[in-house]
Formats: sequence, C-alpha cells, structure tokens
Amino acid sequence: MADSATKQPTYNPGKGAGEPVGVAILGLGTVGTEVLRLMGEHHDAFAHRVGGPLEIKGVAVSDLEKRREGVDRELLTDDAMSLITRDDVDIVVEVIGGIDYPRRLVLAALNAGKSVVTANKALVAAHADELAEAADAANVDLYFEAAVAAAIPVVGMLRRSLAGDQVVRISGIVNGTTNFILDAMESTGASYDDALAEATRLGYAEADPTADVEGHDAASKAAILASLGFHTRVKFDDVSCEGITKVTADDIEAARNAGYVIKLLAICERITDAAGVEAVSARVHPTLVPVEHPLASVNESYNAIFVEAEAAGRLMFYGNGAGGNPTASAVLGDLVGAARNKVHGGRAPGENTYANLPIADGGDVLTRYHIDMEVEDRTGVLAELAATFAARGISLKTIRQEESGDDARLIVVTHSAREADLAATVEELKTSSAVKAVDSVIRLF
Amino acid sequence: MADSATKQPTYNPGKGAGEPVGVAILGLGTVGTEVLRLMGEHHDAFAHRVGGPLEIKGVAVSDLEKRREGVDRELLTDDAMSLITRDDVDIVVEVIGGIDYPRRLVLAALNAGKSVVTANKALVAAHADELAEAADAANVDLYFEAAVAAAIPVVGMLRRSLAGDQVVRISGIVNGTTNFILDAMESTGASYDDALAEATRLGYAEADPTADVEGHDAASKAAILASLGFHTRVKFDDVSCEGITKVTADDIEAARNAGYVIKLLAICERITDAAGVEAVSARVHPTLVPVEHPLASVNESYNAIFVEAEAAGRLMFYGNGAGGNPTASAVLGDLVGAARNKVHGGRAPGENTYANLPIADGGDVLTRYHIDMEVEDRTGVLAELAATFAARGISLKTIRQEESGDDARLIVVTHSAREADLAATVEELKTSSAVKAVDSVIRLF
Repeated sequence: MADSATKQPTYNPGKGAGEPVGVAILGLGTVGTEVLRLMGEHHDAFAHRVGGPLEIKGVAVSDLEKRREGVDRELLTDDAMSLITRDDVDIVVEVIGGIDYPRRLVLAALNAGKSVVTANKALVAAHADELAEAADAANVDLYFEAAVAAAIPVVGMLRRSLAGDQVVRISGIVNGTTNFILDAMESTGASYDDALAEATRLGYAEADPTADVEGHDAASKAAILASLGFHTRVKFDDVSCEGITKVTADDIEAARNAGYVIKLLAICERITDAAGVEAVSARVHPTLVPVEHPLASVNESYNAIFVEAEAAGRLMFYGNGAGGNPTASAVLGDLVGAARNKVHGGRAPGENTYANLPIADGGDVLTRYHIDMEVEDRTGVLAELAATFAARGISLKTIRQEESGDDARLIVVTHSAREADLAATVEELKTSSAVKAVDSVIRLF
Repeated sequence: MADSATKQPTYNPGKGAGEPVGVAILGLGTVGTEVLRLMGEHHDAFAHRVGGPLEIKGVAVSDLEKRREGVDRELLTDDAMSLITRDDVDIVVEVIGGIDYPRRLVLAALNAGKSVVTANKALVAAHADELAEAADAANVDLYFEAAVAAAIPVVGMLRRSLAGDQVVRISGIVNGTTNFILDAMESTGASYDDALAEATRLGYAEADPTADVEGHDAASKAAILASLGFHTRVKFDDVSCEGITKVTADDIEAARNAGYVIKLLAICERITDAAGVEAVSARVHPTLVPVEHPLASVNESYNAIFVEAEAAGRLMFYGNGAGGNPTASAVLGDLVGAARNKVHGGRAPGENTYANLPIADGGDVLTRYHIDMEVEDRTGVLAELAATFAARGISLKTIRQEESGDDARLIVVTHSAREADLAATVEELKTSSAVKAVDSVIRLF
C-alpha cells in the first residue's frame, strides 16, 4: 500500500450518542444567516440525524454593532480565532469568503482538531494541499460540498457515489452569473456590457464582477472537480481559463444561426497526451453547445453538470447553483455529516490524490474550433485556406461562405484536433493575405 | 434524544490502514459478473481509495457447472451460507435478486457482523425494518445505492447530501422497462402489446414482465426513496400502485394532441391530510407530463429523478437507470464505502425513521385528472356534467368538446383536488345518463 493508505490514522472514536456537538460559525452574510436560521428551525430534526444536538457556540462577525434581525447577540464575537479554538467547539463552519483570512482560520481550526465545513471555492482550489494535510494530521473532516454548484451534490457524488468507478470527463455550467449574462444576451440580443449591467442591477453580478466574468470562479470549481474526479491534485493555477468578456452580440447571433448557444463551460477530462501519457486537463472557456443538447437549455443562474464514468455512463445533475438557501442546504448537509462523525466516530473520505496524474499541456487537449473570418472574394481563396488547415492535419467538418459586399465571410467548423495545432492555424490565418480579419474563434462542445 | 440516537453503538474501530478487506459476492448474473470483472481491473485504484486491498474470498452461484469466462473456478461455491459466515469475509455483496432466499442470506451476513451491499430493491422495500435492525445490532453497514436507478446516486444524496435539508417531494421515472414501452408507443404509435413484445425481444423486458409493467418495481423504489427522504419507514405495501397495462395507443395519441406525453412516475411527497396531520404519500401511476417538461424527454431506458427540498429547491438527476455496468458502478461505490469503514472505522448513516410520519390515506392526496369521455350530443349536457364536478368542489381548468358522429367527446382537465373526490366524481360520471363511456382517466403531473 502506498502513502495514501497509511497517511490516515486508523479511526476516530467519537463522543457517543446523545452528546452535543459544538458548532462555530464564521461569517454572517447571506449564507451564514441562512445556516443559523435553519439550524434553529430544524434543531430537533438535526439532533435525530446527527445522534446528538448541534449547539451553536458562537458566530464570528467583523462588525459587532451591525443590526442583525433574529440573531442572539450573546453569540456574536469579533474574535474568530478565540472562538474556533474553544474546547467546546467541535466543528467550524467557514462562510466568510476571500482567501487569506479564512485560510488562516481554517488551518487553525483543523490544527486544533476541529472538523471544518466551508463553502469557499477559492480557498479550497488555491490551498487544497495544505488544508488536506492539516485535516489528515488532526484526523478530522474537511467538507466543501457548497464550494461547487451549491446544493447540487457533485462533490459528494465524486467522493463517494463514484468511488467504485473511473471518471472520464466532468463538464458543465458551474457559474450562475456568466450563465445569466450569456442567457440575457441570447434572449434579448443585448451587448455584453448591457447584459452585465442588467445582471448587476438584479444582484446576479457583484459590484466587481471580475471573478465571475473572467472565469476565475468557474476555474476554482473546475480545479476542485478535477481533483476529486481524477484523484490528482489540480489547483486553480492548473486550470486554463478564458472568460466571457470578449463574447459579442454578433458571436451570439452567429452561433444561433448555426444552431448553437454559447455557454461558459468548465471541462475536466482525462486525456492521453502526444507522448502517450495519461494526464488531466481542466479548462474553462466559452463553448458552442448545440441547441438540442440539455446544457443549451440551462437558463438564468441554474447550474448543470455532466459526469461521464466508465461503468456508470453519462450522469447529469441540475439545480440552483447559487444563492443563500441552496448554499446553506449544502453547508448543513456537510455539517450533519461532520457532526455525525464527531458523535459516532469515523471520518469522511478526504482528499485522495493517489493517482497523481500530470496536468496536461493545454496544447494536447483535443477540441474543435468554430472560426468566423472575413476573406477576400476571389478565386482560389478557399483552396488556399483549406490547405492551411490541412498542413497541420486538421480536417474541416463544415465550411460556409457568405457574400458581404466586396468581401466574403467564411465560417469554418473543424473536426477534433489538438488545441496547439488549431491555435497555430488561427495565427497563420491571421497573417494570410487571403484573410482580412478573424472575427471570432469559439470552441465547440 | 430519542431512540434513534441511542440505537447505534458509539463507534466501530476499524482494522487499520493497509489491512485487506475480504469480500464475498452472492450471485454471478449480469451485475455480479461486472462487479467481479471491475474489481479485478481496478484492484489497485480500489486499494488506494479504501486504504487496503479488496480480496475476493468467494463467489456463491447456484450452478457450479456453468461455463463462466474469465472467472477463477476456485472462487466459486454453491454454499452461500458457509461463504458469508467465514471469518475472513468482511463484506457481503448480494446481487442475486428475489426476496426470500437473499433475505435469509443478508440477515445471516449482518448477524455475523458483515457489512452488506445489495442491489435488491424488492428485498429492501419489503424488509427494510428487520434488515436495518440487524445492521444496527451488529454495528455494520447496509448499503443499497444500486437498488434505485442504478448509478444515479439518489440514495446517497438523500442519506447524506440532503441531510441538512427538508425534502418536500421526490418524483421521477425510475423504471426503464416501462419507459421504453411508453416511449415506443409514443414514437411508433404501437399498441401496448406490440411495444411490450418489442421490449422483450430487445431484452428491455423480462420473460415475465409483471414486476415492471404492473409498477411493482417502481413501487419498491418509491418505498425506498420515501423512507430516506422523509425519515419514515415506507414499505412496498404502503405505496399505491397502478401500472401501464391499461394505457392504450388512443391514450397516447390523445395525450400528444393535448401537449402531453404519458410517463410512469413514482411520486413521493409530504402532504397535510384532511385532518391537518402531516403524512407521507408514495404512489406510482401513469402520468401526463407536459412535453416541455424535462421528464417528457427522458427516453428509452433512461431514468430521471426530481428532488424538491425546502432550502435546496429543485434538483434533477438523470442517467442510465439500469444495466449491468451502471448497476455495478453503484454496487462498487457502496463496496468502497463499506470497505473504507472496515479499514478506518466508523459507519455510514443507516436507516433513520425518527420522523415516523403516518402514511397518507390515498384519498387525501391532491392531484389533477385528465378525463376523456363520450357524452350525448344534446343541449344541457355540459351544464349537467359541470355541476357533477362542482358538487364536490372540483373546478375545471380546461374543457374541450369534439364532435364524433352522433356523439360528442368531452375532454376535461381538472384543477388540483383530493384524489377521493376526483375518483368519486368519475364513478358518478360513469352512471350519468349524459355520459356514454368514460374512456380514460389519467393523472396530470
């Protein structure tokens, strides 16, 4: 047996049935408030499910003076570090957000032997290694179902349900903000800027939307899903990432005319690279999805995730991927699990990176391009451009030529080819005398 | 704390990392063969995930002489009872099917301190009580993800992911055979008998299709889902059940014309009955689903399950709900979980029926009827029939009248009303002089 088997101590005995479990909550924003409210409302149900009552020992907030309806002020503290190291705290729920400050708190909690439930995708994606190590060393649980797609239980599914299978690919819509924007552009013909403004006005986008629209949020989730699915540590920096800021109303219209919608997809897959080595690819980019595909009809801020596994085949999960309530549902599911282990003993499956596959070179990924370009309207152009593709062994699935005044528009859909070859071909097209402009390049699902 | 909390012993220490886990497999049909093959193929991966190697100690079959390609004959035995009580067996995988014989074996295994993984929905739905009791008494695991919708991880989701939420309704297509038949009737216009014959020819229906077409298989799954979702023991006999044998090609066509497809749905929900008491309803019946609803496009032998919970909102899960490979995926996921607990200690959440809600009287369920009847073509008929509905407080959503020779056809869709009132109204319609025949009554989703 390798390290992964010997790393975990044998068992964790538990406090015994009927014993209370002490909980500290860090952060009282939308999610924290819902968690607190639901813990009160369903106190008895949770006690039955855990095997002992959950007792809230304290709630750490940054501003003690702020008015908070229905919250017992006695529970509030602005000293998070003292709260999490209290002897009567068994589990710490982190719903602050950000990276550096929650990282210090979560590590301190794990080091003090507390199990941790977090909804913080950025934290988990950036620091999975040291968090997992600390949890292993202290023999406690680190749960983060809410970090990916809120209440859609994809983390639990990859950790447990598919533990007897070999995952091949995970792909889906995991960011509600960008899906709302793309959906608004699709249904109203709005520009990116106008759709973003509407999303901000309705509360779907934050004041600084960078993390969402540049794809960073989706990339954090892709890193987490790839790590779990392929038993390999995949970190945020390993995910190649392209956001939606360059998607234009013209792109959306051209996609519609060709039978597609544009979605921001996270795609994680096991590939065999050019040298025949098995590797993991995780990427986020705008993608053309055929209108008849189930992902095409995932609207507004909903999320949907496809998982393909060798034995299970293709599974799809769909639900509300954000919001206080669905996120609280995932946090509380984790909390009940962690509390159950505190009472009855045992430990949930933690990070297990035994497969330790290399991260694929982005250029080795197989994909398909949809290329829209303005070309000269003269004899021989088509043959010239076709030769440019053929030179790198890229075959074309469809070619559509349209007149537009003196110029012609050429819309090419390639067959599957190496990303590096496709990208190099596009660069060459840009310098070709026959091509006036490459207007858009979007990958196909 | 109530009984449920004190019933489970405090902890289960585990063998220690690196220790082998002995597995006995009962049954070597389609699923058992795949389980055995995949355990060989992925032996090392499973050892890493479990924390120790899985060792197959024996495989119980009924016919030792049968040729079985690629199976080590040394492992085979026809003495299942001796195999499962061997000291070196930690986990028993039951994939025989049937009820009485596997029940004896599973109880014997649990009583001997072995954890059990079963794919047997009929067994679990009929005997959940004594199986759960035996597992609790011996402090071992009883897993049955594969019993419902194969690799769609709905059992794990209800047991764990939604442990912090309150499930309101579970509904879906959970039987592939009937979905194949209804889909064939829908797409080819075939009669029920012809579609069944085709399903049998293609291996989608068994030689004796009773359990599938009468809805019994779906009812077993409904019982399991309702038990987990509502923390209440719901057994097969508690599920009201109507199969698809009376669905005609005319019904299918009429449904299509009205914008619906007919699906056999399992519906489990928490309702408040006439006396204001909270209760659980579980039922299986042909149901009109609007064509634009995601369930309408679940074709062939695929399964799809909707779960609605208070905080999570509506979640959907979709995948291949039957077949050797997807079922083996679920069995192996459970096996890895049970083996992990044998190595590291702890125990998976077992049955927890603390809520102990009453089973709803079927008549108290709120539903909607689509009624298709031949009526006399004379003045006053419509008013007369409308009064019949109104007498029981049932309001009508749509009424469509069609001429057909001397007679008229009346197609009525009701608003939501008590099942008992709807059924009594239909009985009254049948005896009304204005009604020549009630041709079909189908519930709406």
